Amino acid sequence: MASQTYAIIGTGAVGGFYGAKLQKSGAEVHFLLRSDYDWVKQHGLSVHSPQGDFHLFKVNAYQRSAEMPRCDVVIVALKTTQNADLPHILRPILKANSTIVVLQNGLNNEETMATSFSGIIPNSEQLTLVGGLCFLCSNKLQPGVIDHLDYGLVTLGQYASQNIPAGITTTLKQLSADFTQAAIATKLSPDLYLERWKKLIWNIPFNGLSVILDAQTNELMACPSTLDLVQGLMAEITQAAAAFGRDIPATFIAQMLELTAKMFPYKTSMKLDFDAGRVMEIETMFGNPLNAAQQMQVSTPKLAMLYQQLQYLNGRIVEVAQ
Amino acid sequence: MASQTYAIIGTGAVGGFYGAKLQKSGAEVHFLLRSDYDWVKQHGLSVHSPQGDFHLFKVNAYQRSAEMPRCDVVIVALKTTQNADLPHILRPILKANSTIVVLQNGLNNEETMATSFSGIIPNSEQLTLVGGLCFLCSNKLQPGVIDHLDYGLVTLGQYASQNIPAGITTTLKQLSADFTQAAIATKLSPDLYLERWKKLIWNIPFNGLSVILDAQTNELMACPSTLDLVQGLMAEITQAAAAFGRDIPATFIAQMLELTAKMFPYKTSMKLDFDAGRVMEIETMFGNPLNAAQQMQVSTPKLAMLYQQLQYLNGRIVEVAQ
Repeated sequence: MASQTYAIIGTGAVGGFYGAKLQKSGAEVHFLLRSDYDWVKQHGLSVHSPQGDFHLFKVNAYQRSAEMPRCDVVIVALKTTQNADLPHILRPILKANSTIVVLQNGLNNEETMATSFSGIIPNSEQLTLVGGLCFLCSNKLQPGVIDHLDYGLVTLGQYASQNIPAGITTTLKQLSADFTQAAIATKLSPDLYLERWKKLIWNIPFNGLSVILDAQTNELMACPSTLDLVQGLMAEITQAAAAFGRDIPATFIAQMLELTAKMFPYKTSMKLDFDAGRVMEIETMFGNPLNAAQQMQVSTPKLAMLYQQLQYLNGRIVEVAQ
Repeated sequence: MASQTYAIIGTGAVGGFYGAKLQKSGAEVHFLLRSDYDWVKQHGLSVHSPQGDFHLFKVNAYQRSAEMPRCDVVIVALKTTQNADLPHILRPILKANSTIVVLQNGLNNEETMATSFSGIIPNSEQLTLVGGLCFLCSNKLQPGVIDHLDYGLVTLGQYASQNIPAGITTTLKQLSADFTQAAIATKLSPDLYLERWKKLIWNIPFNGLSVILDAQTNELMACPSTLDLVQGLMAEITQAAAAFGRDIPATFIAQMLELTAKMFPYKTSMKLDFDAGRVMEIETMFGNPLNAAQQMQVSTPKLAMLYQQLQYLNGRIVEVAQ
């Protein structure tokens, strides 16, 4: 049984999947829900997975974090567009030495959180922030039911101020032990920031261009013009990462491209958001890397243009939603 | 009455409009048609216009240029995507000293034509090539009926090898006299290449981004991100033009933007093509200016990326059409 108690902030396709697996392994897990609350409170949570379906009949479900107990580990699986609310959501459920695991895409989420916590969460500097990068295909198409399609690896790295590599810490090892018991594959990284940049190598071109060009991954790979543009974007991100002392080898990019070419034609998560009329998480995935590059005087014109194009489309979504 | 006889190659919204006006003024005009041939042969050509509707009952209509008489002036108003066929289309209707007026968008159409004529058209170096830039809003939504919405000015400039300014030639003056008699406003330019670059200042950002972002001109102007991108593209084109000794003043760009902001929300011609599933004229409007810039070592990363994005979308249109 897991040694720690868990809170899941955002019980969607990602948070719901990992939270359900942790509870199934015997851990004490508390789920914060929004639209699915009534359904889950009454019926529980279901996971459909090639690794085996399961159903949790009784789930600790909450509509407001103020009603939740304080937990050892708080897993943040909200969209980054909701991060401004996080200090107030997290304050009631944190212990003095809680670990916050950020399962979100993009750059500098942990840094922004650390800043936003101070002043609202007492002694927030004693909290441990861990970033998690999920390599997971899952959907939530109906309330309380998570369709796990493939994969599931979580790469975990601890955040340290100034993005200094934190090494493989005790916190990481404890998390990994709990996750492993819950049949969640983990990889521990001594350098979270490097992992974040590596993930952007794929996320920026494929999420961005899939939306702009209404294209699936295989279509972007098959056209010489877009393949060249994908590689150009990857080169810009590599240069930006290098300016922060993070060297991403050419072999890694070649592997990413090879993997993508072999993948089943795939709609990126940002494309799914866009098609559903949901605001896209462009600030953390495009705006923050662009700012980081500019801070180091690295020229990334393709990234800048892609970001501007996405800002236009996001602006239109907000208008519709109003 | 016009002093010269006219052939209209491509009787669409542009060629049909100017050709009909020339014939109405008394000129001898011969129209090459494709899909509208049967209708026009039987019913003639109609122009609906705020300047007054008119109908030409009898029209010299042809399906093949080989059946047409040789003409003094040949107006090319085909899409640039058909330019590879031009030498063979034009050969039967040219006199030794004919004038060819190219009413097409983009860069280097005249240069490419001059090259493609030699070897196929005897003594092609004696022909006079004139470029025409139309500031015209017109549509052809049904066979033989042209809806003229607004404007109509044609800026005419003579082509000379190496894009050297040809000055205001006798040929230009003759054309202008005929056009004026046909109530077509003209402006004569001593430097065709400058006019082509100036037109690209507007065409590249607005045609390109309207397709990529499914946006109208007013929407691109209203969003700060896309307005910045529009201005960035305009700056790149200005730099490319300057490398060829063509200085486009900042006041011209400011005027273009002001004009666009005031314009009635407007779907660009490329967006109309894209929405109708027609192949877009991206080579002459994006590929040729990009090549020209590269030739002069001018960096135009935004133009390059826009071109790659449009190539992807054009590729998809071709696939559908097959």
